[in-house]
Parts: sequence; structure tokens; C-alpha cells
Amino acid sequence: MTQTPSHETVRVNLGERSYDIVIGPGLIARAGAEIAARKPGIRCAVITDRNVAAAHLDSLMESLATGGIEAVPLVLEPGEKTKRFDELVKVCDHVLGARLERGDAVVALGGGVIGDLSGFAAGIVRRGMSFIQVPTSLLAQVDSSVGGKTGINSSHGKNLIGVFHQPDLVLADTDVLDTLPIREFRAGYAEVAKYGLIDRPEFFGWLEQNWRDVFAGGAARIRAIATGCQAKADVVAADEREKGARALLNLGHTFGHALEAATDYDGRRLVHGEGVAIGMVLAHEFSARMNLASPDDAARVQRHLSEVGLPTRMADIEGELPATDILMKHIGQDKKVRRGALTFILTRGIGEAFVADDVQADEVFRFLEEKRGS
Amino acid sequence: MTQTPSHETVRVNLGERSYDIVIGPGLIARAGAEIAARKPGIRCAVITDRNVAAAHLDSLMESLATGGIEAVPLVLEPGEKTKRFDELVKVCDHVLGARLERGDAVVALGGGVIGDLSGFAAGIVRRGMSFIQVPTSLLAQVDSSVGGKTGINSSHGKNLIGVFHQPDLVLADTDVLDTLPIREFRAGYAEVAKYGLIDRPEFFGWLEQNWRDVFAGGAARIRAIATGCQAKADVVAADEREKGARALLNLGHTFGHALEAATDYDGRRLVHGEGVAIGMVLAHEFSARMNLASPDDAARVQRHLSEVGLPTRMADIEGELPATDILMKHIGQDKKVRRGALTFILTRGIGEAFVADDVQADEVFRFLEEKRGS
Repeated sequence: MTQTPSHETVRVNLGERSYDIVIGPGLIARAGAEIAARKPGIRCAVITDRNVAAAHLDSLMESLATGGIEAVPLVLEPGEKTKRFDELVKVCDHVLGARLERGDAVVALGGGVIGDLSGFAAGIVRRGMSFIQVPTSLLAQVDSSVGGKTGINSSHGKNLIGVFHQPDLVLADTDVLDTLPIREFRAGYAEVAKYGLIDRPEFFGWLEQNWRDVFAGGAARIRAIATGCQAKADVVAADEREKGARALLNLGHTFGHALEAATDYDGRRLVHGEGVAIGMVLAHEFSARMNLASPDDAARVQRHLSEVGLPTRMADIEGELPATDILMKHIGQDKKVRRGALTFILTRGIGEAFVADDVQADEVFRFLEEKRGS
Repeated sequence: MTQTPSHETVRVNLGERSYDIVIGPGLIARAGAEIAARKPGIRCAVITDRNVAAAHLDSLMESLATGGIEAVPLVLEPGEKTKRFDELVKVCDHVLGARLERGDAVVALGGGVIGDLSGFAAGIVRRGMSFIQVPTSLLAQVDSSVGGKTGINSSHGKNLIGVFHQPDLVLADTDVLDTLPIREFRAGYAEVAKYGLIDRPEFFGWLEQNWRDVFAGGAARIRAIATGCQAKADVVAADEREKGARALLNLGHTFGHALEAATDYDGRRLVHGEGVAIGMVLAHEFSARMNLASPDDAARVQRHLSEVGLPTRMADIEGELPATDILMKHIGQDKKVRRGALTFILTRGIGEAFVADDVQADEVFRFLEEKRGS
């Protein structure tokens, strides 16, 4: 008989918008009971994509039915391109067509794309309905399921249209992560490690010791996800609408996004979490270069991320990268390039990240020129 | 030399989302100065429709330029059909194409359609930008400019998609109302009178005495609009997300909406404010029928609204109305028709409206059967 790891519950404290994230195995099969216990009489629209549907939709629908919850599923195409207006209209029409009321719920079964899109629809149908997330990727469990950011992409850029809309409940089933490709699990792991690097040095130390167990599943995985959710929840509770401290969550993201853009968001070359991994190493190295932190910390970050199998160097990216000028353009979003000050998340050491709004663009340029070859 | 009536400012108290409604003559010509004083360095996208643009866009753009405010206009087709997803996408693209940031503003120059659509765009671009309203109809000045409801229509019904997004500033130029067709001014007046009927009996008495001055313009008009905005602001401050007391604002609207639906939202037969006028009379008469209020109050409401030239009887609507069964369907939105309890705003007298959630559908049916001929 195997021992069943217990569930952990993280409470996201946002006043009347507070909610629970339940983390543990077998939660899809228990979703109906969990939801019915909290929201008796609720009806649901389940939004998912074709890939996730094949693996988990039947199980979720059965679980909802067992809980006495009426639910109407909508299956969309997988992939980032689903985060667009046309698909948003489709989801809204589906929810309204099912005659759901304000107190009824949109349920997102999937990764970040499905979560962002469904959450946006839940935020605007009837000016805000209940929203329940059943995230099926590690990244969605530790990142997009906390904080209430929802949205779609525009021809002008990613995530430019959306709302803040907090879920009423998140059910993070840790078993489903076993069905993820290892590369996707690793990419999500970069965001887990990020929380240690921001302000939980002891958690980063724990990950260095226990990452193999996190990858293997079981109690260590639940612990890592719960700690990541708690870390993000603490930041979000302090700054729900992203006016200050929440910027710390972008550690590694300025460099990371620039690399994603520089590779045309081609997931075969670089996925988001991989960009963040390289970006976090660069942020630590740049902080050391600015004499803010010890080079030993940067080396330690690089060593750990590399050990779990993540790319940590620009040279790890397959194919050519564009010229540093172009990278700087992506970093500065076409503004203040090579002149003036940029805002970056820098660090004074492991777990001591801070917002630096006076980073000189030419320093960054020189740094990238050097690093791109290494 | 004519005397210039002074401006009035109504503060809508919503914590950190509080804002001012400035009411008075010549505000479009002063918009640049008013905005620049409050939001130095702000940039704007001005959203309007073809009709309003012809009358007021040049004046607003000139005023913004004088205030040193960079602004990019977008002119849409007039009419309710503009409140749809396609047009929302157009507005979002325009705002993003102008490279506006979160602190920059979407400015709505127009009536309720432009305000609802632009406010929705302001609420979702970059997950919420600044929003400034320059309402050009009486209805928009006293109703849609207060409360933060924004949205578009869906094939499933009106205003079913949207967000709550409070403006940062409302500039209600009372001069522009002189260019409104009298029928539209009257329709807006119905909503002004509504605030008296909800909980300000002395205001209703004042309107009975002074309505000709309100129609003529000048200080009485400013007073009436300011009182209406204040009345709505008080209700909204107590119940921003429409969980309770805000329902009082629907006085006359349940019957009114049913009549609008019954006339296929054909503005030639019935516009919103006219439906509300008839609906308010019906709500008072039904309350009298239920022995909740005196028939004299109902007669007084009917007399005043009729005196200003509003329709007050179903028989005042041109053309045939559908059978009472159909009206009941619109009232109950297909639910609980003729059986069970409905929620209505009823009254105990002038200025004593309340939410009644136990109204018997068959009583309403019998009442309408009788009233439709009278």
C-alpha cells in the first residue's frame, strides 16, 4: 500500500475576494465534491483545450456530475493563438448560451492559455461571474492560478487586453503533472525556483536538496507547489493591482521576455519558463557586475537551474539570436533604448530581489554583448 | 451681459476609486484645462460617434491641444448596434495603436453607447486604464456617467458583457444639451425624476415646480443634473458591485425594459427613458393596487411626467403591443412566468421606493391586462 500524501491548502488573502488553492493528488476526480461543498447549487461552463480534454475532461465531467453539478463543456484549440478576441467571444457566447447566472462558474481546465482566456470571460460576462481554476500545468499551478491576472493577446503585444479577476477556488491536481512532457515540467520549475530567489532563500536551499523528489511527485512536489503559491499569494495580497511590490514577480522576466520575443515566441526554440531561467541567471550576473551581489550567488543559481536541465545561457538557445540592439529594443519596448534608465528586478543575493528603476541601458547593452557569446 | 451660472461638482465616494463629476456650461471648451490640471502629462484617445463628432469633436480636440494634451480621435457609427464586440476590438486597437499607457486615458465623448463601449475598452486595455467621460446626452450625464457600469450587448441580450470600471473624471457640459432633440432631452428627464421618486421627495417637488427652467437651461438645469448625479452616487457608494441597494435604481425599469423589448427596441416607437417613464407610473400604480401606496401618489407621478411631454401609458406607445403573456416573458426573462415570485422596485409613496422580491407574477399579469387598454 502506498502512502497518500496529504493535501495542502493555500489561502490567498484579498479581503472579500479571498480564495483557497487546494493542492494535492486526485483533485480532478474530487472536483465535484470540493466545488459542491463550497458552492451548493452552482452550475458550470467547463472551458478546456483539445489536448487537455483528451486526458482529463471525462474525469472532470464525471466528477462534477457525481457532485450533482450541472456542467457544459467547451473544447478549444490548444496553443497561444487561442488567446484572442474571437475565442473570447466564443467562450462568452457559450457561457451565456448555457444560461449561467452571476453566481454560476466558469471552470478553466488547462494551462495558462485556458486559464487566462476563461478567467477573462468570467470577468466580463454579466460584469463578473464566479471562476474556478483546475490548472493542469506546473506553470499554471504556481503562477497563473494566483493573482487574478486574466487576458488575451493583441496584434500590439501579449496580454495587453484583460482584467484582474480573482478565482473563487483553485484545484491544483498534482497527479496530472505526471502526464506533462518533461520539458514543460522543467519550464514550470523555473518559476518555482523564482520564488526562492525573490525572497525565500531557505526555499531555494530546500529545492537544491530536494528537486529530484519534486520532479518525481509525491509530498515534495506538493510542498514545492504550495510554497510557490504561498509566495506569490503574499506578494499579490500586498499589491493586488500591480502598483509596486508585485513587480518583483518579474525577476528574470525582462531578459526572459526579450529572449522569447527574439526567438519569435517559437516554443521549439524557447518556452516561457526557459526564458525565465536564462533571465534569472542574467539578472544575478548583472547584479554581480553592478557590485550589488556576490558572483558566487549567480554561480549557485546557474548551477542549480542547469542541474535540473534548464537552459541558463543565451548560447543554450538553438539557432541565431538577433543583434544586441534588437534585444535592447525588446527590453525597452522601443523606448529609451541605449539611453536613459530602465526598470529591472535586480538582487543583493539569493532571496534578496528588489526593484531597480535606475538601470542604465548602456550598461545592459555592454553586459549582453559580452554574455551572448558565453 | 448674461450671468454665467456657476459650476457644480459632485464627488463620487468610492475609496481609492473616488472621482469628480463637474457639471456646468462650456466644459467641452475647458476640458483641456480641467484634465491637464488633474492629470499632468496624460495622453488621450477620444472615442465618439459621427453625429457627436460633427457637433463637438473639433471643439474638444482644440481644447485638449490648448491644454497641452496629445489626443487621437476615433469616430464610430452612432447607434446601439455599435455596442458590440467588433467595435470593442476597434477601440482597443485604436488605444493600443496610439501607444497609450495605463495612466493615459480613454475619453468618451458621446451618449450612453459611446460611454459604455469606451469605458469597457478602458477597463480591459492593459487591464485598466484611466477613463474620462464627456457625456453629451442628459441620460448619459445623470445615469451612465455615474456608477462605473460599462459594457456591450450580446446576441443573448443587452449589456451582458462588460466590467465595472469607474471613470477618473466626468465633465458634464450642460450647454451641449441645447443641441439635443427635445424628445431625447425628455427621455433623459425621466431618469432625473426617477431619483426624486426613489428617495428624494423634496427633489421631486422641486422638479414639479421648476421643470420648465430645467428644460430651458441655466442654473436650474445644473441643479437638477447635480442632484441626480449625487443621488445616484449615494446609491452606488453604498453598493458599488450591485449586490443590494443599487437595485433601487431600477425603479420603472422592469416594466420599462419589457416595453422596450416588446417594441423590438425600435427607437421610433419607444426610447429607453420613455419606457422608464411609463414603467415608473406603472410601478406606482401597481404599488397602489397592492395597497402599499396611495393612488394619489401614482396620479401625481403620472401628471408630472405627462406635463413635461413624456408618455405615461402603454396606450401612448404607437402601434400594437404584443399579448400580455409576451410582456410577462420579457419581465421574467423566460423564468417563473405567471407562477412564483418576481423582484420589482415598488414604493410606499413619492420618494419611498423599495426592493420587493415577493411580487406574484399572476398579480402582475392581471394588472397589465387591465392597464394595457387604459
